[in-house]
Amino acid sequence: MEKWRSSQRILRNYTKTLISHRFNTNHNNSPNISSSGKQGFYTNSYDLRDYRGRSSTTVNQNCRNLQYRLFGSTTFEVQRNPSFATLNSEDVNRFKEMLGEKNVIEDEDRLATANIDWMRKYKGFSKLLLQPKSTQEVSEILKYCNSRCLAVVPQGGNTGLVGGSVPVFDEVIINIGSMNNIISLDKVSGILVCEAGCILENLDSFLLNEGFIMPLDLGAKGSCQIGGNVSTNAGGLRYVRYGSLHGSILGLEVVQANGTVLDMLGTIRKDSTGYDLKQLFIGSEGSLGIITKVSILTPPRLSSTNLAFLACKDFFSCQKLLSESKRKLGEVLSAFEFLDNQSMDMVLTYLDGVRNPLPPSVHNFYVLIETTGSNETHDKEKLEAFLLHSMESGLISDGVVAQDINQASSFWRIREGITEALMKAGAVYKYDLSLPVEKMYNLVEKMRIRLGQRAKVLGYGHLGDANLHLNISTPEYDDTVLAQIEPFVYEWTSSHRGSISAEHGLGLMKANKIHYSKSPETVELMISIKKLLDPNRILNPYKVLPHSLVQE
Amino acid sequence: MEKWRSSQRILRNYTKTLISHRFNTNHNNSPNISSSGKQGFYTNSYDLRDYRGRSSTTVNQNCRNLQYRLFGSTTFEVQRNPSFATLNSEDVNRFKEMLGEKNVIEDEDRLATANIDWMRKYKGFSKLLLQPKSTQEVSEILKYCNSRCLAVVPQGGNTGLVGGSVPVFDEVIINIGSMNNIISLDKVSGILVCEAGCILENLDSFLLNEGFIMPLDLGAKGSCQIGGNVSTNAGGLRYVRYGSLHGSILGLEVVQANGTVLDMLGTIRKDSTGYDLKQLFIGSEGSLGIITKVSILTPPRLSSTNLAFLACKDFFSCQKLLSESKRKLGEVLSAFEFLDNQSMDMVLTYLDGVRNPLPPSVHNFYVLIETTGSNETHDKEKLEAFLLHSMESGLISDGVVAQDINQASSFWRIREGITEALMKAGAVYKYDLSLPVEKMYNLVEKMRIRLGQRAKVLGYGHLGDANLHLNISTPEYDDTVLAQIEPFVYEWTSSHRGSISAEHGLGLMKANKIHYSKSPETVELMISIKKLLDPNRILNPYKVLPHSLVQE
Repeated sequence: MEKWRSSQRILRNYTKTLISHRFNTNHNNSPNISSSGKQGFYTNSYDLRDYRGRSSTTVNQNCRNLQYRLFGSTTFEVQRNPSFATLNSEDVNRFKEMLGEKNVIEDEDRLATANIDWMRKYKGFSKLLLQPKSTQEVSEILKYCNSRCLAVVPQGGNTGLVGGSVPVFDEVIINIGSMNNIISLDKVSGILVCEAGCILENLDSFLLNEGFIMPLDLGAKGSCQIGGNVSTNAGGLRYVRYGSLHGSILGLEVVQANGTVLDMLGTIRKDSTGYDLKQLFIGSEGSLGIITKVSILTPPRLSSTNLAFLACKDFFSCQKLLSESKRKLGEVLSAFEFLDNQSMDMVLTYLDGVRNPLPPSVHNFYVLIETTGSNETHDKEKLEAFLLHSMESGLISDGVVAQDINQASSFWRIREGITEALMKAGAVYKYDLSLPVEKMYNLVEKMRIRLGQRAKVLGYGHLGDANLHLNISTPEYDDTVLAQIEPFVYEWTSSHRGSISAEHGLGLMKANKIHYSKSPETVELMISIKKLLDPNRILNPYKVLPHSLVQE
Repeated sequence: MEKWRSSQRILRNYTKTLISHRFNTNHNNSPNISSSGKQGFYTNSYDLRDYRGRSSTTVNQNCRNLQYRLFGSTTFEVQRNPSFATLNSEDVNRFKEMLGEKNVIEDEDRLATANIDWMRKYKGFSKLLLQPKSTQEVSEILKYCNSRCLAVVPQGGNTGLVGGSVPVFDEVIINIGSMNNIISLDKVSGILVCEAGCILENLDSFLLNEGFIMPLDLGAKGSCQIGGNVSTNAGGLRYVRYGSLHGSILGLEVVQANGTVLDMLGTIRKDSTGYDLKQLFIGSEGSLGIITKVSILTPPRLSSTNLAFLACKDFFSCQKLLSESKRKLGEVLSAFEFLDNQSMDMVLTYLDGVRNPLPPSVHNFYVLIETTGSNETHDKEKLEAFLLHSMESGLISDGVVAQDINQASSFWRIREGITEALMKAGAVYKYDLSLPVEKMYNLVEKMRIRLGQRAKVLGYGHLGDANLHLNISTPEYDDTVLAQIEPFVYEWTSSHRGSISAEHGLGLMKANKIHYSKSPETVELMISIKKLLDPNRILNPYKVLPHSLVQE
């Protein structure tokens, strides 16, 4: 493993920030953690004093059977906060008294899994995983941790992409998965109340029987938990229709750092009594409190769904198609996704059994348009009229409408398979950006020019929400490629008032990059609020906000 | 004017709160401010020392030509915060330097209008109205006021119902109405950016030409301003379709108490970079900062609108009709309003030219269902099929669909005319509540039993959002009636986890009643946030939160 270092100072008003970036290079593309060990992470900053009595061999042994892979975005040198205590046997005993022996996990294999994210990009060294079964238990844990200054990381389904749900050092992991009860559903209003550990897909299945659906749908739905979805302000495929969780979430129960339970679990649609504090916890990635219960407005399940797979000759046509669809399909539009030809190529090359439903030779862009409505005849008529009109006006050059659920699944497989194909292709540099629609694809083209033949640059994502997934694929990680990408990608996004994290959060990956999307005054206020709600900074440290500023 | 006093201690954990309620009675029903003067407000708590050199006659003279009317909900005895400075001539000169002479208003007639709300229920005694033209000017004003500890009240269209937008004592009024420029509209995404002083109806008219609509629509749209709408988290008629401003607002520019400008004016649909701080200012009624610019997602204007006016025999049928309409009309449902027979009677009795479109003898409830969609034929078919089915199943006992815009307007006139009819009928006690749908009308019935023949009890509102407007009409104000209503109405709402302010805010009227809808821990955190953002408490004092707790 080679390393190339760069000490890029954080720009703008953040010159005080001394965190430097480190670029990891991985030439064999799938090193094992047992050979790289901690070397791959925070080597220089990892404070061994905090791990007295614990050899680095142990750490490596814990992870020996895990595949380890870097995904080529910068990681940070970050110092363990010296004010945090180190876990001792008395702590463990106290937790056993609180939760019972079986919910206090010290087993190395189970810890190894909980210490690493599913992309195997971020790895911590926690020695303890706690599994509370109630709000009261979460409260007792936090009260104790706060009094001892023991740092914690809340963990849900651990499906995040930015290192937000795994420890950085030795934080105690609090896994919410055992809190997975559905509490109530108001069948008139569609208001669902449940515990934070409920898996998204389970909630959707439950609702389906009751005539409702969840207002969000993600690729990770089989594992991700609603508490994590809310904590990360998750987006996904239904966003274009049902909007942000800031609108759908009606109430939360949250445990603060000191153990105080905030009951904000409203089950009504409208409420204008004081500050809407639950909003602070939506998207704060567990750094202000741990969400234990959720109240959410779920839309009625409608009977008819249609899916069209279309080809466009250029990105302008995609945009125009979006504008037209918002008017002509209006109320039935439920997804508007796009991928470019390079993304299609990637899927066709690396995934078995996938074929392009449209002759591939001349199409630069592909668009998936889904409609969902209450009347199948009406919906089909609308979609067909829209497609006919769009063909005649030249906005789409070819297209096909799924005739059954299997065909619809095969179309979605193309769009949803891009991530998997990229992982098979080699190294990948992933960016999740919000940009004004008309500028969105310019970045992909600029990146292609910057990188030339050295990389494949893919653009795809939720066009209906102007959310671009920019993915750059190379046979192996190459710091000179990375240096061409970053900070350019962030600077360009910032210069167009875009967001460097549309729906993935900042986590550890982009905690120091927040200034690209938020003004210094806004970040300063965020830090004040962090300090107000978590004076000892024990909640999910090193994430979301520049750690050096939080620690000041 | 008679007075009857009650010193009801704030319940639950608020025993420290020493504010007592005062019930004003008005037997002649339309007293003139010149005869009642300050007597009607805060007489005992009004600190004359702060008005040295200004006789009470002057105050009365200012308001002599204003009609003054009490609406029968409790007002509070509240002490002027002694830490606030009193305006002097040097302050006025400084403001003139900042804003120019013509934007510093000392004219008594203009101040008289700005000192009182449109319902003529709340009246302050401000000696100065400022009209900034830019964010920079708002920033300079606040920086100066903060340094001098001069309290301010931000004012938009002054159309609120809870005394949030008028001074309580001598706060400087900052009117944002001159900041009324539309800044940009992204015609692909529908994202509108404008200054906070834009009038809602003007924005809607502008958008209509561009093929979009505002996601909110209120009775006060001809006067209310978008900054005020956002500050009060306004609801209204389109809420059932387009949801809360917490979902629609994409960005805000806000000036903090110390003059710092927070640029959170995102113009993208998705953003997960740090805490979503703009949410704090949505619904905080100007007590955390002054909103100067707004970025909002506007839905496409769809071509077809239909309106049905229906009769139901009982409230259960109304509920069931709502459930069915969410499924059968699903994506085209754009309003679901209800009124009871008592509301209909009120309108028919007091408004000229209004007639009941349905034979009135047997109907206990009336429902307005509006659909908005992209295809007129489809929408009509859906609505007709739904109505036929609902007639057959007995959910509706009669109904009519508007055949043209005039007929639609006459139907809306019934629903929207209730407030006007109530004002003509005499005294009115108004409550804006969110409750679980199935419990909503129980409160109206219970209130009818409590009050018997002494009052007419009306229930109407946004049934689609479970938002009840409970209005109690008596020939004149009567404290024994009020004592039957309050605190019962708040206690009952609280016991069903409802909201005592669904869409009107708390303002001055309900600042001390927040505990009926929010837990002590949540209120405590609100107060901490207030103190963090506005350490001198100069922003819209005495509103939203219990003043005694904020002042501690």
